[in-house]
Amino acid sequence: MRELPDGTLKTRLCDLFGIEYPIVQAPMAGGPASVDLVAAACNAGALGSFGAAYMTPQQIRDACAATRERTDRPFAVNLFSPLPEPGAYDTSSTLARLRVYHEELGVAPPSTPSSPSQSEQFESQIEAILECRVPIFSFTFAIPPASAIERLKSAGMTIVGTATTIGEAIALQDVGVDAICAQGSEAGGHRGTFAPPFERAMIGTMALVPQIVDAVRIPVIASGGIMDGRGIAAALALGADGVQLGTAFLATNESGASRAHKAALLAASDDSTAITRAFSGRPARGIRNRVMDEFESDPGSIAPYPLQNALTRSMRNAAASAGRAEYLSLWAGQAPRLARSIPAAELVRQLVRETDETIATLESLG
Amino acid sequence: MRELPDGTLKTRLCDLFGIEYPIVQAPMAGGPASVDLVAAACNAGALGSFGAAYMTPQQIRDACAATRERTDRPFAVNLFSPLPEPGAYDTSSTLARLRVYHEELGVAPPSTPSSPSQSEQFESQIEAILECRVPIFSFTFAIPPASAIERLKSAGMTIVGTATTIGEAIALQDVGVDAICAQGSEAGGHRGTFAPPFERAMIGTMALVPQIVDAVRIPVIASGGIMDGRGIAAALALGADGVQLGTAFLATNESGASRAHKAALLAASDDSTAITRAFSGRPARGIRNRVMDEFESDPGSIAPYPLQNALTRSMRNAAASAGRAEYLSLWAGQAPRLARSIPAAELVRQLVRETDETIATLESLG
Repeated sequence: MRELPDGTLKTRLCDLFGIEYPIVQAPMAGGPASVDLVAAACNAGALGSFGAAYMTPQQIRDACAATRERTDRPFAVNLFSPLPEPGAYDTSSTLARLRVYHEELGVAPPSTPSSPSQSEQFESQIEAILECRVPIFSFTFAIPPASAIERLKSAGMTIVGTATTIGEAIALQDVGVDAICAQGSEAGGHRGTFAPPFERAMIGTMALVPQIVDAVRIPVIASGGIMDGRGIAAALALGADGVQLGTAFLATNESGASRAHKAALLAASDDSTAITRAFSGRPARGIRNRVMDEFESDPGSIAPYPLQNALTRSMRNAAASAGRAEYLSLWAGQAPRLARSIPAAELVRQLVRETDETIATLESLG
Repeated sequence: MRELPDGTLKTRLCDLFGIEYPIVQAPMAGGPASVDLVAAACNAGALGSFGAAYMTPQQIRDACAATRERTDRPFAVNLFSPLPEPGAYDTSSTLARLRVYHEELGVAPPSTPSSPSQSEQFESQIEAILECRVPIFSFTFAIPPASAIERLKSAGMTIVGTATTIGEAIALQDVGVDAICAQGSEAGGHRGTFAPPFERAMIGTMALVPQIVDAVRIPVIASGGIMDGRGIAAALALGADGVQLGTAFLATNESGASRAHKAALLAASDDSTAITRAFSGRPARGIRNRVMDEFESDPGSIAPYPLQNALTRSMRNAAASAGRAEYLSLWAGQAPRLARSIPAAELVRQLVRETDETIATLESLG
């Protein structure tokens, strides 16, 4: 094993973000991307990212402040762009199903929460992000309102959009983002698809990345199925300027994922996951479990996003506390066998070393 | 651009197959893998493969003889392993749908063909393969009967099985295959899935390959979404010992794909394909068109494999002659934008050069 020279793995993404290695710890809304994880990723030379979609403006402020106490390196905050509000929806069949789960978990019966306006929520989150002078802003689900993009850019922030097709990547470049996260079908968590129907945008990383690289001028960050240095070297070979890893960081010590989630991840295999709307109303990849299967067998009982997310929250919180994986959204990508239960800094070190070794092995084939 | 030294890109697959570069031209049953294509691929240093699933024993003998007149290099023959025969099926709704298409194409009304036994057909194809002393035998759809594997091995043939999950790869290694083709979800044409339900085995190449590499000892050939040297370098980085490319060879001059198929491929984009049972009764990836959409909107009208394949054959043959893409099985992977309409030998040369250049670029990142 040769010593890593300083400056290994430099790409233009390192300059754009001001980071050491072109490795992004994926946002992972809903808990996994804790301050501990983000700070550890940043201090190890990667870009830590908060999945702030479900965070209040105050929570965003607190997270930024806490992070800055732990690191002076840049970090990212990710939001879900507001989508058209769903029309009136009769939640009775959703509640009927949830009632059973709540009873089993021994918590109060479910009720229909009031849904805050996505646009208002987004605007207030953007305010917090501007106020905190977050270095890098990333988004998924749609192209945010032009006014938001303009304000973030005027404030000097670097902006990253998420694409699942060539067409989406071009649309993102056209609105002025600085980099594109190309999300392959392998990726865990929510699909970022916003242009074609979801099922048409399930393009594997191996096919998606080089086609997007050829279609845009700005840096491309590959995501989906990348878990180790082999995957990082592969993504760079495809023409990506960097990689974003979610599932790999999910299993680390600092990740805020529940114990039950981590245990399910470490027990999963390549064919353990599926795309489901069961937990949030929007397609996302997670480890199959009872609640996913039961909602999927009765799609009419799945409320639209973001209502389904609000409806299932109590169940998920109770299940996380009780360690009951069958009620949780067990977001994970398609390579769980490569997950490592180690400190995040050690993960980054291993990733960089493995990438270097992989490139050295490739050289030796010639 | 540096000169390619002799011996570039050597892996243990080159030794196993007796080939110059670890590149396999995918079998592509039903016409694309013509003698012209197979011979051109072999002479250029890759492994040419016949997709012989629909060929009679005599056609296999003729193809082998014609190939040997054009090259002295090893080549492969691929078969679909026999599956349990479908039970009795009422073809009336399938015929009703096909009648419309036949009328539009101006050909005689469809009828229900007699279905030969898959096992008998397979046995007679194996006889031809043994008789021709085919150097490399590959298969998909299932693990063939132990007796067939034994005879092929006793005859000294190299055997390659197709896996879409880790579990399938281990099962194939256990029955004694010499190499595994790991088929990612990006791949065009038929899915090789034989253990889990199809929809659970849609694992992207980026996730599938390293997990299979870690699970088996024998060489792994990556397939799915690989179209150029970037993809080849990526696959090798993931730990694969070689690559199998179908869609890339489909567009070459020597490919026997219909003009309409090639034109559709060159006009397609990343989100143009879908998985369908419309043409053969078994899930396969192709470019979406009218017949696919109409059958998929009425799944009850799709007969089981191999009956659906026999039922749609007249339509497909008539459509190919008439250049009518909307009635064809337009098999293609998820990276059609990277397809090149050039001679197959030139494709192989470009692939090797690009792979070398990609590896050189990776070195420069360190």
